[in-house]
Amino acid sequence: MRVGFVGLGNMGAPMVANLLKAGLTVNVFDINPAAVAAAVAGGAVAAGSAKDVAAQSELVMTALPSPRLVKQVYLAQDGILAGAGKDTVLVDCSTIDPHTARELVDAAAARGLKMADAPISGGSMGAKAATLTFMVGADADLFAQIEPVLKTMGKNVIHCGEPGSGQVVKICNNLLLAISMTGTSEVMALGVRLGVDPKVLAGAINVSSGRCFSSDTMNPWPGVSPDAPASHGYAPGGTAEIMLKDVNLAVDAAREVKQPVILGAVSQQLYQMLIARGWGDKDLSAIIQLYRDQ
Amino acid sequence: MRVGFVGLGNMGAPMVANLLKAGLTVNVFDINPAAVAAAVAGGAVAAGSAKDVAAQSELVMTALPSPRLVKQVYLAQDGILAGAGKDTVLVDCSTIDPHTARELVDAAAARGLKMADAPISGGSMGAKAATLTFMVGADADLFAQIEPVLKTMGKNVIHCGEPGSGQVVKICNNLLLAISMTGTSEVMALGVRLGVDPKVLAGAINVSSGRCFSSDTMNPWPGVSPDAPASHGYAPGGTAEIMLKDVNLAVDAAREVKQPVILGAVSQQLYQMLIARGWGDKDLSAIIQLYRDQ
Amino acid sequence: MRVGFVGLGNMGAPMVANLLKAGLTVNVFDINPAAVAAAVAGGAVAAGSAKDVAAQSELVMTALPSPRLVKQVYLAQDGILAGAGKDTVLVDCSTIDPHTARELVDAAAARGLKMADAPISGGSMGAKAATLTFMVGADADLFAQIEPVLKTMGKNVIHCGEPGSGQVVKICNNLLLAISMTGTSEVMALGVRLGVDPKVLAGAINVSSGRCFSSDTMNPWPGVSPDAPASHGYAPGGTAEIMLKDVNLAVDAAREVKQPVILGAVSQQLYQMLIARGWGDKDLSAIIQLYRDQ
Amino acid sequence: MRVGFVGLGNMGAPMVANLLKAGLTVNVFDINPAAVAAAVAGGAVAAGSAKDVAAQSELVMTALPSPRLVKQVYLAQDGILAGAGKDTVLVDCSTIDPHTARELVDAAAARGLKMADAPISGGSMGAKAATLTFMVGADADLFAQIEPVLKTMGKNVIHCGEPGSGQVVKICNNLLLAISMTGTSEVMALGVRLGVDPKVLAGAINVSSGRCFSSDTMNPWPGVSPDAPASHGYAPGGTAEIMLKDVNLAVDAAREVKQPVILGAVSQQLYQMLIARGWGDKDLSAIIQLYRDQ
Repeated sequence: MRVGFVGLGNMGAPMVANLLKAGLTVNVFDINPAAVAAAVAGGAVAAGSAKDVAAQSELVMTALPSPRLVKQVYLAQDGILAGAGKDTVLVDCSTIDPHTARELVDAAAARGLKMADAPISGGSMGAKAATLTFMVGADADLFAQIEPVLKTMGKNVIHCGEPGSGQVVKICNNLLLAISMTGTSEVMALGVRLGVDPKVLAGAINVSSGRCFSSDTMNPWPGVSPDAPASHGYAPGGTAEIMLKDVNLAVDAAREVKQPVILGAVSQQLYQMLIARGWGDKDLSAIIQLYRDQ
Repeated sequence: MRVGFVGLGNMGAPMVANLLKAGLTVNVFDINPAAVAAAVAGGAVAAGSAKDVAAQSELVMTALPSPRLVKQVYLAQDGILAGAGKDTVLVDCSTIDPHTARELVDAAAARGLKMADAPISGGSMGAKAATLTFMVGADADLFAQIEPVLKTMGKNVIHCGEPGSGQVVKICNNLLLAISMTGTSEVMALGVRLGVDPKVLAGAINVSSGRCFSSDTMNPWPGVSPDAPASHGYAPGGTAEIMLKDVNLAVDAAREVKQPVILGAVSQQLYQMLIARGWGDKDLSAIIQLYRDQ
Repeated sequence: MRVGFVGLGNMGAPMVANLLKAGLTVNVFDINPAAVAAAVAGGAVAAGSAKDVAAQSELVMTALPSPRLVKQVYLAQDGILAGAGKDTVLVDCSTIDPHTARELVDAAAARGLKMADAPISGGSMGAKAATLTFMVGADADLFAQIEPVLKTMGKNVIHCGEPGSGQVVKICNNLLLAISMTGTSEVMALGVRLGVDPKVLAGAINVSSGRCFSSDTMNPWPGVSPDAPASHGYAPGGTAEIMLKDVNLAVDAAREVKQPVILGAVSQQLYQMLIARGWGDKDLSAIIQLYRDQ
Repeated sequence: MRVGFVGLGNMGAPMVANLLKAGLTVNVFDINPAAVAAAVAGGAVAAGSAKDVAAQSELVMTALPSPRLVKQVYLAQDGILAGAGKDTVLVDCSTIDPHTARELVDAAAARGLKMADAPISGGSMGAKAATLTFMVGADADLFAQIEPVLKTMGKNVIHCGEPGSGQVVKICNNLLLAISMTGTSEVMALGVRLGVDPKVLAGAINVSSGRCFSSDTMNPWPGVSPDAPASHGYAPGGTAEIMLKDVNLAVDAAREVKQPVILGAVSQQLYQMLIARGWGDKDLSAIIQLYRDQ
């Protein structure tokens, strides 16, 4: 199968490597020539534009950093919709707002094309290790068609429902991550301040009702999870900047449907405070600094 | 071994049953004669006062609903310290503030007595099934001495450190539970409002970074966790009232050491709002009503 | 002086009436023919488009409900910039984000035109009574030129600084209003619940350090401020919907510069909760319902 | 009239000076002999205990820093209730929780004595200048009796209702102050960050709907209110520590009646964060540092 890939950043580049490893032909494009050159060195085929990628591929994937860029790459004159043949299927792996995701699916449908939203979690480490989770919004046929390709890059490929629902699930999950990470930071800082050893505290929580991914896998207190960013100077991982970007998407989506997200909004502001203090490029677990740097 | 037990409520009564099942002699006292009669019917021995319980036992346990009652039962003229012989050890299983816990340990030490704080999680269901978690603050010798007895009533017996640290761990865990449950309620309500099936949403979160006890075991959306209170009309489980009581202990302990707990304080107020609306005797997962009853 | 006015809604219509009362010629346009007819009946001159309004006027004003509409009315082919002669000055009275406001000022400058942002407070009552406050972002010359015209419609015409700063001041003021109104609602509900008469409580606060516009002029407890919406079934005044729209603008502007607004974000969510419960078209002081309807 | 005064701290000492200036005889006691000596040097008469003060006075006042001390000074064996004759009236000016205030009134009533709670606002500057505000909880007769004496020390003497209601009004006012000050800090920091001059911003807010004591009298941005602590290195005024103490009283009183105070609780935690960073002895307006020190 000929796969196209537009967006060869921290996520896209290793995903392409895994597609190639699976024996697929991969046509690539990126505005950064160095990123294209690196992919070609790994076996990919360079195309001159997103439109050309689409023209040469049966399945086109994108992994881009903002809704604006996603719209541009799909809708521009030299964009994907302009080049895609009638049986080409489209999969956007960017994390964007559900509203834009559905707009793009509609724009594709207007040209007779099928499109899925399939945002990913797992970070660049997961992308390299082919252990990503894909949260897929697509009709059942399209899901069946793209699942095997996504499996070459990820461990979990979850069908979340109709187009747009992949984005909804992604932003809900990440909003809960932000809340849990902030909450875990509060109680770790509190417990240590009250005299308990951080490993003992986390250990007890992890077999009790406070247990969460942020306590048992990515604990924000240094040394508790040996492989977590907190134990390595908060080197990311997923940065606080990206966490905030996802929380903003969730809070904005909530706004559109007038659904209150109170803890979510407080976490949003606390991440904003953290970034204002210069911690934006550190791991999201660095939010604990707000409770410690006193 | 002769064990004493003061406080035969929802937790104490089934704990006594498990002690008896393990073949131990259990001397009991409660201000409620019916509770004593029930325990005696099960094989326990009635004592006339907390002091008498202590005088007849090598290990004395208590499970009481408030710091005030705990102080009274230990420190009154007919209380436990007045009756305990010099080798009797004391274990308080109530959830109280760390400050009072340490005061009592000191009062016991002043009489040459060893005391542990060992608050429990797992609810009355866990008490019946002998699957409780004990979070124990005690010196190493005392912990070694009481661990086998606690094992007859629970699955996890965790040594949290010096006296008082059991309470610290308990309130930290429960504060994080309150935050996670509130956060899970926000994202479940949001995702469903944005058109995703609640089971699919929870399923995806539960293999991703938002995963927590409140999403994967006690999900607040009806029908997602079949055995959870949310799937049974929010019949408790642990009530919202008790959740608030524990959150209050945590927020107050944070206040004493000037440690901010921002999400914790917002959760506290939201539980207060829930209770003000008449949901206090429902399960703590009913907090999702604040995001749904519109 | 020939004045143009685009946007004849709740605010624009009475503002036009006051311009006419001051003896000015007023050219008007609105997409709603009935609104145009009403203005013409009052003495205004109908124009065929925003472009025509601009072509016939020395000063063009706009009062529109969203950034999207403002951009369209200024930038479309039949919009204001297309029609304005080289000495025409432009004044936008809409409340929009500072970013869009500055974009429009730049677009006007690119055609050699001077433009001010002059958002208003005071509501439709203030518009009728000519007691509005204008918060004006403009260079000093432009401010001097437009001030006399604005004075025909308002009591306070405040020069806030360079273009864009009128919007900044407006959204800062309204964010603080949202916070104060929510805070006043919390303490009024608390004090009454603790047994104090609401008028006595407000009276004491109003001569003390808690005093604010929301306590002394627009108190949310019914009967305390006889003329306030709370004393008339929460008939607006300024609706909760519009309050939320302004708070959203402020929180978004804060996001762009990574400035945390924690109480602001919580108020935002509480207004969202209020609106989700069906109170969106009531006065903003109805936020107290969240603390009372139990 | 013979007046007694127990508690000669920052507030009590200048209040005694004003009582003496009004020509009254003042019997004083404090555990700090230096404070007593200073009062005697000013014309007061030293007594050996709180009981002695009460025995020699027709009206006894207290100004103490905590509920615990207030209870002790009234209820101890050598306390006020033990010494007061049957026509002596009692006035406590300390800020304490309404619950304790009502307990003391009941204890006094049990001995046939009338007691009022009359917490004050205005700070030590107001105490010196005799411009304090007294918020008085007392029955109508008692209020009429004590009002003239309080007028010698303050400008506003407000009758808030039955005993206990003075405390309720005081903590409600101070909770709203904490919220307003935090909110004003958020919008001042935001507006300046968005490019507006702080004096212009405050000036516009102060004639608009965001106006409050914290914006127009004690603005937290340096230089805006020339006489405010912010313009003098945040030298107090009222310290952040005392602000937090009062907020704690309010949040605790809300807890007792299950009344949510969401913004109040967030402000509480933010003051806790400020104090944890070492700003506890600065003026309460220093809360703006959380939004600036980045």
